[in-house]
Amino acid sequence: MNLLVVGSVAYDAIETPFGKTDKILGGAGTFISLSASYAGATPLTVSVVGGDFEEKYLKMLESHNVDIEGIQIKKDEKTFFWSGKYHNDMNSRDTLVTELNSLETFDPIVPESYKNAKYLMLGNLAPTVQRKVIEQMTTRPELIIMDTMNFWMDIMLDELLKTISMVDVLSINDEEARQLSGEYSLKKAAKKIHAMGPKFVIIKKGEHGALLFNDEKVFYAPALPLEEVFDPTGAGDTFAGGFAGYLAQKGDVSFENMKNAVIFGSAMASFCVEKFGTERIQNLGKEEINERVFEFVELVKFDYKPNK
Amino acid sequence: MNLLVVGSVAYDAIETPFGKTDKILGGAGTFISLSASYAGATPLTVSVVGGDFEEKYLKMLESHNVDIEGIQIKKDEKTFFWSGKYHNDMNSRDTLVTELNSLETFDPIVPESYKNAKYLMLGNLAPTVQRKVIEQMTTRPELIIMDTMNFWMDIMLDELLKTISMVDVLSINDEEARQLSGEYSLKKAAKKIHAMGPKFVIIKKGEHGALLFNDEKVFYAPALPLEEVFDPTGAGDTFAGGFAGYLAQKGDVSFENMKNAVIFGSAMASFCVEKFGTERIQNLGKEEINERVFEFVELVKFDYKPNK
Repeated sequence: MNLLVVGSVAYDAIETPFGKTDKILGGAGTFISLSASYAGATPLTVSVVGGDFEEKYLKMLESHNVDIEGIQIKKDEKTFFWSGKYHNDMNSRDTLVTELNSLETFDPIVPESYKNAKYLMLGNLAPTVQRKVIEQMTTRPELIIMDTMNFWMDIMLDELLKTISMVDVLSINDEEARQLSGEYSLKKAAKKIHAMGPKFVIIKKGEHGALLFNDEKVFYAPALPLEEVFDPTGAGDTFAGGFAGYLAQKGDVSFENMKNAVIFGSAMASFCVEKFGTERIQNLGKEEINERVFEFVELVKFDYKPNK
Repeated sequence: MNLLVVGSVAYDAIETPFGKTDKILGGAGTFISLSASYAGATPLTVSVVGGDFEEKYLKMLESHNVDIEGIQIKKDEKTFFWSGKYHNDMNSRDTLVTELNSLETFDPIVPESYKNAKYLMLGNLAPTVQRKVIEQMTTRPELIIMDTMNFWMDIMLDELLKTISMVDVLSINDEEARQLSGEYSLKKAAKKIHAMGPKFVIIKKGEHGALLFNDEKVFYAPALPLEEVFDPTGAGDTFAGGFAGYLAQKGDVSFENMKNAVIFGSAMASFCVEKFGTERIQNLGKEEINERVFEFVELVKFDYKPNK
C-alpha cells in the first residue's frame, strides 16, 4: 500500500555529551521516510529543500526506495537548519539555532501520482501546512497519522485542533498530551484527545516506552533499556515512520496490528539513538532489525500462573 | 513456604490533592505483610510498635493470616509516626513530620519459630537493623529480598553496601538506582548493583512500571495507566510484598517465575494507590485480584508477525 509522508528535510548540527557534528542530514520527513522504508513501504515524500541541499542525500533516500518526486528544490533558498545541544541526562535540550529558510514559505504540492495514497503520515509541521496536504488528496486515505509538537499548541491552538479533528491517529509525547488535554493522568488525557477526533492516540514516553489508546483499549509498548543513548534527535519521527510503514505494508489498521506497528516503530527508534542523526538508520540490515524486534518480544514476555 | 518480613508498623497522616487523613495505619512492614498475604503466603512479621498502637489493627493483620508474634509492643513508648503532603502531580512529596519513637531503638528479635524461614523480605529500615535479622537466621534463607531508600545512601553508605552484599534481590526506585550506582542508564546501574552482590535487581519506575534485571536478562513490567492516583503511600512496599509473597507461595526463584511475581506485585500496587493508606488492600477479593492481573497480561500482549 502507498504511504504518503510529509515532513521537513533539513540540516541539523547536534551537540551531545558524546561529541558534536557539523551540518548533517536531519528533518522529520527524512527520519520518517527512511524508517518506513525498512518496513517494506515505498514512502512518497512531500517536502522542500534549498539549493544548498546535497545531491548525495537525495540519492541515499532513493537507494532506500524513498520516492522523492514530491521534494521541492528551491534553488535560490537554503535548506531548513536546526542546531541543538543536549544536556547531560539526554532528556532535555536547548535549541541553539533555528533557520526556517525554505520551510518558511513551504507550500506543499502533492504530485498527481501520490494523491490516491491509502496511508498518510503527517510529520511535525504547521497544522495549516499539514491540512493543505489532506485537502489535496483525491480520496480520503484509509488512515491519517499525525505527529505534532507543543510549539503549535502555544502559537496556533485553534488551527492545530482543526487539523487534529481530521486525523485517525495522533502521536505525541507525554508532556504534549498533558498540555493538549489539560489532564495529568495519561489515561484521562487520551480520553480527551479521542474526543477531539482521533480514534487512536499514541503517547510516547521516551525511555519509558509508548502507550497506544483506542477508546477503552490500551497497549503498553516498553522501551528497551539501553546502555547508552548517543543522540535522541529524530527518535520520535523514526518511531512514527516505522509505525506508519509497518501498517502500510500490512494494509491492516486493526488495533491488534497497530500493537505490532508500535513495536516495530519502537525497535527502529532504538537504533536511531545509537548514532548521530540518520547515520544508524541509513545502514540497517533486515537481520539486525528482526533481532531487535525479538528483543522487544522477549522483554515483556511472561506466562502468568494464577495462584490457587 | 514461610516468608519472614521485617519492616516498620506505623501511623501515617497523609495529605493529597484529594483530601487528608488523621493518624491511619501505615509502615513498610504493614504494606508488605498485607500484600504478601494475598499471594497466599503467611507473613511472619518482625517489627515494633508503641503502647498507643490500637489492638484492632493487630486483629486486622491476624485476620489476613499475618503472624504477629514478632511484633514487639513497647508499652511506654509511642508508635513510629510519619506525616507527608503530596504535590499536585503526586510524583513528589514533602515530609511534614517524622517521629521515630519506638523505631529509634528498634532491636529486631526474630522468634524461634521464624528462624528457618525460607524467604526473607527486608523492608526499608536502617541497614544495620536489616543485617541483625539476617544474622539471627539459623539457616541462610533461600532468597533474601531487600528494599531501601536514598536516605541510607546519604547517611550510612558503608553499612548499606555491607547489607546489600548479603542479599539476592535489591528493590529500589530509578532515582535511588542512579544515586547508588552513579550511572544514569538504568541498564548500566543494574550492572553495577549486580557487582555489589544481588543477583537480581528490581528498579521501580512508578507510573512507568518496573524493570527486573538478572545479569544479561531483563524484563519490563508495565504499570497500568490509571485515571487517578489517590494516594501513592506504600505502593512500593505493596509491590515488594506481592513480589515476595508470590515467590514464597510458589517456592520457585527462577527468573521466569520472578517475572510473574513482578506482575503480581504491580497489580497489588495498583490497588494500593486507589485509596488512602492500607484501606484498599485491607479489603480485596480473590476475584478482583485475578481480574487486575489479567489487565496487566492484556496490557502488553501482542503477537508480532515479522515482515516478509
